[in-house]
Amino acid sequence: MIKVGIVGGTGYTGVELLRLLSQHPKVELAAITSRAEAGTAVADMFPSLRGRVDLSFTDPAQAPLKDCHVVFFATPNGVAMQQAGALLEAGVRVIDLAADFRIQDVAVWEKWYGMTHAAPELVAEAVYGLPEINRERIKSARLVANPGCYPTAVQLGFLPLIEAGCVDVDALIADAKSGVSGAGRKAETHILFAEASDNFKAYAVPGHRHWPEIRQGLTLLAGKPVGLTFVPHLTPMIRGIHATLYARITREEDFQALFEQRFASEPFVDVLPPKSHPDTRSVRAANVCRIAVHRPQEGNTLVILSVIDNLVKGAAGQAIQNMNLMFGFEECLGLSQLPVLP
Amino acid sequence: MIKVGIVGGTGYTGVELLRLLSQHPKVELAAITSRAEAGTAVADMFPSLRGRVDLSFTDPAQAPLKDCHVVFFATPNGVAMQQAGALLEAGVRVIDLAADFRIQDVAVWEKWYGMTHAAPELVAEAVYGLPEINRERIKSARLVANPGCYPTAVQLGFLPLIEAGCVDVDALIADAKSGVSGAGRKAETHILFAEASDNFKAYAVPGHRHWPEIRQGLTLLAGKPVGLTFVPHLTPMIRGIHATLYARITREEDFQALFEQRFASEPFVDVLPPKSHPDTRSVRAANVCRIAVHRPQEGNTLVILSVIDNLVKGAAGQAIQNMNLMFGFEECLGLSQLPVLP
Amino acid sequence: MIKVGIVGGTGYTGVELLRLLSQHPKVELAAITSRAEAGTAVADMFPSLRGRVDLSFTDPAQAPLKDCHVVFFATPNGVAMQQAGALLEAGVRVIDLAADFRIQDVAVWEKWYGMTHAAPELVAEAVYGLPEINRERIKSARLVANPGCYPTAVQLGFLPLIEAGCVDVDALIADAKSGVSGAGRKAETHILFAEASDNFKAYAVPGHRHWPEIRQGLTLLAGKPVGLTFVPHLTPMIRGIHATLYARITREEDFQALFEQRFASEPFVDVLPPKSHPDTRSVRAANVCRIAVHRPQEGNTLVILSVIDNLVKGAAGQAIQNMNLMFGFEECLGLSQLPVLP
Amino acid sequence: MIKVGIVGGTGYTGVELLRLLSQHPKVELAAITSRAEAGTAVADMFPSLRGRVDLSFTDPAQAPLKDCHVVFFATPNGVAMQQAGALLEAGVRVIDLAADFRIQDVAVWEKWYGMTHAAPELVAEAVYGLPEINRERIKSARLVANPGCYPTAVQLGFLPLIEAGCVDVDALIADAKSGVSGAGRKAETHILFAEASDNFKAYAVPGHRHWPEIRQGLTLLAGKPVGLTFVPHLTPMIRGIHATLYARITREEDFQALFEQRFASEPFVDVLPPKSHPDTRSVRAANVCRIAVHRPQEGNTLVILSVIDNLVKGAAGQAIQNMNLMFGFEECLGLSQLPVLP
Repeated sequence: MIKVGIVGGTGYTGVELLRLLSQHPKVELAAITSRAEAGTAVADMFPSLRGRVDLSFTDPAQAPLKDCHVVFFATPNGVAMQQAGALLEAGVRVIDLAADFRIQDVAVWEKWYGMTHAAPELVAEAVYGLPEINRERIKSARLVANPGCYPTAVQLGFLPLIEAGCVDVDALIADAKSGVSGAGRKAETHILFAEASDNFKAYAVPGHRHWPEIRQGLTLLAGKPVGLTFVPHLTPMIRGIHATLYARITREEDFQALFEQRFASEPFVDVLPPKSHPDTRSVRAANVCRIAVHRPQEGNTLVILSVIDNLVKGAAGQAIQNMNLMFGFEECLGLSQLPVLP
Repeated sequence: MIKVGIVGGTGYTGVELLRLLSQHPKVELAAITSRAEAGTAVADMFPSLRGRVDLSFTDPAQAPLKDCHVVFFATPNGVAMQQAGALLEAGVRVIDLAADFRIQDVAVWEKWYGMTHAAPELVAEAVYGLPEINRERIKSARLVANPGCYPTAVQLGFLPLIEAGCVDVDALIADAKSGVSGAGRKAETHILFAEASDNFKAYAVPGHRHWPEIRQGLTLLAGKPVGLTFVPHLTPMIRGIHATLYARITREEDFQALFEQRFASEPFVDVLPPKSHPDTRSVRAANVCRIAVHRPQEGNTLVILSVIDNLVKGAAGQAIQNMNLMFGFEECLGLSQLPVLP
Repeated sequence: MIKVGIVGGTGYTGVELLRLLSQHPKVELAAITSRAEAGTAVADMFPSLRGRVDLSFTDPAQAPLKDCHVVFFATPNGVAMQQAGALLEAGVRVIDLAADFRIQDVAVWEKWYGMTHAAPELVAEAVYGLPEINRERIKSARLVANPGCYPTAVQLGFLPLIEAGCVDVDALIADAKSGVSGAGRKAETHILFAEASDNFKAYAVPGHRHWPEIRQGLTLLAGKPVGLTFVPHLTPMIRGIHATLYARITREEDFQALFEQRFASEPFVDVLPPKSHPDTRSVRAANVCRIAVHRPQEGNTLVILSVIDNLVKGAAGQAIQNMNLMFGFEECLGLSQLPVLP
Repeated sequence: MIKVGIVGGTGYTGVELLRLLSQHPKVELAAITSRAEAGTAVADMFPSLRGRVDLSFTDPAQAPLKDCHVVFFATPNGVAMQQAGALLEAGVRVIDLAADFRIQDVAVWEKWYGMTHAAPELVAEAVYGLPEINRERIKSARLVANPGCYPTAVQLGFLPLIEAGCVDVDALIADAKSGVSGAGRKAETHILFAEASDNFKAYAVPGHRHWPEIRQGLTLLAGKPVGLTFVPHLTPMIRGIHATLYARITREEDFQALFEQRFASEPFVDVLPPKSHPDTRSVRAANVCRIAVHRPQEGNTLVILSVIDNLVKGAAGQAIQNMNLMFGFEECLGLSQLPVLP
């Protein structure tokens, strides 16, 4: 058993961490913090946890975080970078579900996130927590930067093609669609039910913060800077990301076999048979990425479909997968819930 | 470990049984039948089960159902009554998720279901599978009639009041709202997305088949015929039932305490604090009924709010709860998944 | 042509007024105010109005409201009572879509709305704008209190029964379900898409502000205080109210004929044939109330189903219907759009 | 006034034609046919039309279609080609909302639609009813092939770029998302509410029938065969198409100005200001296409966002726009309803 703390548990990644961690056989939930909700029982805010999670939110200043083996930050961007250093010094390992440690180039991070980085020295140490790429480094990491939701779906979908060097990395296109929980549990007008329901739109086409994150990951895979057009869209569903990826073929391959082989031993990536169309509900509430490979009309453009639950494989589930790796647990421990369909 | 068979696994209660049974530690899924889909891998029809359920649908004639310890019928009404007898004779226990054995008065059943009953002798033997009322009888039952979804939510909500004899049982009102999965996985126009989304309506106000089932249960509790008005509504959500119950007070009580005491030892009924409003998502995908007790403006009308997931506590989950009782397993075994919120 | 002003046009009733008034053949939109959005073009906030509404929001202090023939208040409660007096003195007629002038008993209003009334003298003058009851008084009114959305659906449904004196007015029950736009265009967590979608719940069961409003109206009809239990629910749809009404019969009638006769000459109330179930989409975006009359199992409880679009017959449409009456226009002018289905 | 007939009025394009035509000042609805529903009052099937449309469905054999000035076919593919000839001979003009006359190359049509064409001689005569390209030819057409929904959104979005010759037409990508009404009012499992709600997926990636239609249109514009990758997706909303289009720049232009100038005089195409993100609800229930032009990160890929209501500008509205042109009416007549938002 390890002691686990959560900083900032009132958002959707927070409550999803609680759902998954409270069912994890090796975890003791030791503390969950929220300045605004200090003293409130977690189960009063999230009745789905009644009878199963007894914790109350604690003020961050009082929470016994340094007694934990690992602390998850489910906070807005800019919080973990303030607090991670002290925890690491105290021997606590840290998994940040926000973006503070995802971008290695601090100047790029500061430009896209609009603030000065408080702990640039930790950025270099942080391991980008995509196990399908960085599994070994994650095992020994003190500090893991959990990937964003779009970056998880997009990078897993492009991964085999770029590793194999068989597509034109100068003109990659990622057309991604997200459920509304991806925007967080914030009181903002544009994500009200009466605004976002029965409606569909693109957003942030001029530039989204996940663009440099995805581009960094693909550039590392390609060994040279990639050209990426990334268009996110808001879809009237609660959970789920569907990434539709386009790449031009530069060398013939058996692309279906390429994907199947690359992910054959991955516990949480499922390559579907040819001509499949994964739907987001096939991964709802589960830590899985399902991928289908298409080559329409035998042309020279590949179409890759990649779906995840943005709150699980795109956030809390992947964070726990990283925790399992860091503490030598079986990688699937506590993550074997089946998707909820319908 | 017990061997379990499912007859008719292509509907929503079927796939929900598969989701829950495949994660149950004492269950070996031995067979699942579908005439129409014989030979199809279950996971091809329901990709959410890929990698976790290896079975294919079998033609009912070929399926090794008589080798099972228990067989679930997730079939349309009128199927289980044809087949249950032979299975029982072979020593197999049967849980019917349809309505064939729910109504003790065969003439009433035949009137509401529009067919002649094929096994009236089994009706008398069948135990109505609402554990909160019939736990002991279920333990030894060979044949369990699993309650309908509306009847579960409505009976649990009225139960403490009628047992205590403190409301007027001549004028009970149950205004119930169901998600669309309650209508089944049938290709019918009125439950198409473009018909049922962004829309709300009552249906079957002149008479719904769950009315005699609820009335039978409440009449047994009251010890005399009850007067019940039952109005079901179709709500644009996938899962969930919300029953809003109205009863006139005939004797003063501490109604909150009455409910809390009645359900204090029930593992799957959760009485909320005063002034609560349970939402259906607080039980989504979980085997729980949450109940709140209100007395608006201190008048003489009680308002009880009762929510369940129609596919879990209203169908597959309750069926497994019954199975656990029948085979001496811990009642909660395989049913401890937390609700999925958001 | 009359000049029309709108105070507070950034909410859902405001944009619905704009949609309907900009298509009204006798209306010139002269001003729309918003302190927060002063200077913003209306069509920049609501792109649905691009090319059709050229106005910009004006600061209330600068808006030429006194030059208007009529001003609509689409403001939060408590605003119209501050400003209506000066407009009325200037000869401008006023229609308040909020609650400031709906309740004749100022003490009751102050209790439910939690503020001191700023213009109690105007309350007595205000005419409650339900044309099916007050048509003649509305025609000559200077100040109209436009009814709430729930009160419109519930009062129209009970109206014929109470006027005829054939039901028990001591035990009326109104179980009402509203789309989420009824909660307004406010940045609040509980009406976020990820909270309100795929979910259903009751709210304000201990007491909702529309309860005294409905009760006042029904009491006037009955000629004595009525007993009313009112339970509102939040439904995952954008627009629409479905009221399910329960009343015990005290005198036999041909109830279907009673409703048909009462509403025979009403342009915006449609009594459906026996055994009908109106759905909310059958009135979506239109100024209609559709009603069905049921008597389940020939018992002594009537069930009335009443549906409206909360933003049209429940707000902006009814306000324009009142305007038409006040200015001697044909009552249907500008209100003949057909419902949008699907 | 012209007499109008509708063949096949029980689907979504049929009821949308009814909604719009019954409000058109120059139209008398003379007949609507349905074999299955002959004798049923239209308003019994679609209560939204109660009191406004008095017609009943007629058997096609009895309907006075030859007395009409124009007949709309809102039928499945393959019906209009059987019946259009006789109507044209009788002097009736025909607008087909299905695909029978959209593809000029009969062999291509037969391959994609899986049937032999019954009237290839009419294909050559038919005018493709996209007014923004073919306005003059439509005016004098006897037979109009109304474009598909996806083809309308995609062609209007690519139109200025291809006409100007400033993008690489060998590698066009159209990632399109449709509401579920686009699949028609057919009782099919995959478009049930409980399947399509809270879910997102691509479909027909190997090949969709709108691909050859779009490709034909773009090829005509380009003057040479274009390379097009087209991926449609199913979105959990009722109405709306959002096309996200990708094109590589081959010659610098002021792309925003290019779009604004091309559509300056188009009554139903609205080019939004730079950096806009049109949402589908901004055109809900209205005959408008809204377009935004983006060039992310000043790279060499243009991103065009194009939204329509699939049932209006993508079907019934565009058909009436064509009718207006054919009969010399003002092009906007009967099509000026504002979008319904929220």
